[in-house]
Amino acid sequence: MPEQLTLYLNKVSPYSQKIELALLEANAPYKGYQVDLFNKPEWFASKVNPAGKVPVVTYGGPDVDPDDPSPLSAKIAESNVILEFVVDLYPDSGLLPKDPVLRANVRFFIDATTKHIEVPFYAFLQGLESYENVLKGIEFIQGLLKEGGYFAVGDHYTIADACITPHLARLRIVTKTDLGNFPVGVGYKLDDELKRPKFSKFMKYVERMLERPSFKQTYDEESVITFFKRIFTKRMQAS
Amino acid sequence: MPEQLTLYLNKVSPYSQKIELALLEANAPYKGYQVDLFNKPEWFASKVNPAGKVPVVTYGGPDVDPDDPSPLSAKIAESNVILEFVVDLYPDSGLLPKDPVLRANVRFFIDATTKHIEVPFYAFLQGLESYENVLKGIEFIQGLLKEGGYFAVGDHYTIADACITPHLARLRIVTKTDLGNFPVGVGYKLDDELKRPKFSKFMKYVERMLERPSFKQTYDEESVITFFKRIFTKRMQAS
Repeated sequence: MPEQLTLYLNKVSPYSQKIELALLEANAPYKGYQVDLFNKPEWFASKVNPAGKVPVVTYGGPDVDPDDPSPLSAKIAESNVILEFVVDLYPDSGLLPKDPVLRANVRFFIDATTKHIEVPFYAFLQGLESYENVLKGIEFIQGLLKEGGYFAVGDHYTIADACITPHLARLRIVTKTDLGNFPVGVGYKLDDELKRPKFSKFMKYVERMLERPSFKQTYDEESVITFFKRIFTKRMQAS
Repeated sequence: MPEQLTLYLNKVSPYSQKIELALLEANAPYKGYQVDLFNKPEWFASKVNPAGKVPVVTYGGPDVDPDDPSPLSAKIAESNVILEFVVDLYPDSGLLPKDPVLRANVRFFIDATTKHIEVPFYAFLQGLESYENVLKGIEFIQGLLKEGGYFAVGDHYTIADACITPHLARLRIVTKTDLGNFPVGVGYKLDDELKRPKFSKFMKYVERMLERPSFKQTYDEESVITFFKRIFTKRMQAS
């Protein structure tokens, strides 16, 4: 029986949502504690995560209030490290298959999510790059999806699905609201691109993932939109 | 009993050496096949790794010659994914502890190796950045090492040690030979910095890792130096 687990998170953070998805899909009991990213409590860096970032989990130790963390609990940071930690606590959750080759496929998908989705998508969002690399990355990820498959890998929800889904949700916000530090209208153009038949396998996967109860339960779209409006202020007019 | 495993590698690649270290430390039988990075065989991208990169392993399928790979074997790429694959094939090797918190510590160390060693070190080597971030990264890694500990995490050689060691060897080449696209003499200056008492815990760890038989057996210093001389040609005079 795993010990107490507290997740320090913020609802706008895709990395936080990854962990909530994995915990919910594993039916794992946990306490969630929202950290105000613009006004972090003083004890957070000194007692929980010296890097000051969410998500982070405390595991074990006495069952304390999240705002009074114990020095006796283990502190675990970095979202992909935490995903594997959830698997290790719940090895029968199906979050990682038993077969070594399938496990490698899940981890390759997670690695690809960082390199082919996160990196180009957030560079585009910040106005540093066009969306060309986003489309290339989506093609790469689409190439990993099995024809007729439901999940990223194999026939069960895994940490590969939990890893990519929060980014898919934010991609949808951008294509539906045009929010981001790119020229006005470019978010809608990306939406048009993704409607091409070429991307239909990927878009079907997106739709399935965003329909799952674990996703709906952990996603607060209004907060993410408010956050995007707050940080993407350097809008340019389309040329 | 695991099936056939063939590692496509190159002796100059630190990522390839990671996998060799893990396989040797697990006493795992494998076939190694050197891929000429400057003149890759035609079949490599089409039959082994579409990304054209080493390391990659083929696992299972018939026991074929490495230069005639079978479509029936699984192909696994990305060095950190392969490290976990070796662990999954050899769960009793000690390459990953059994305790979930220690496992998370190993994976956090691997993540930190990418962010705090690889990224700043290769940026410095390519002449893109000064070595300030290398020193900061080393301080971070040093902070993860236990006082009096022998290994990166816990009391056994793990994939955390296998992951960082090839980079430590290349760091030593740079500080001993001054090879890299930085101004002449800066490699020696970095050597002086690392001799300060401040870095003694880290340097002792480096020394231990570079003394291990598995390291000596997989390291071809002459090839790495020849490779560095070939690629670092844009030397500048110190200002």
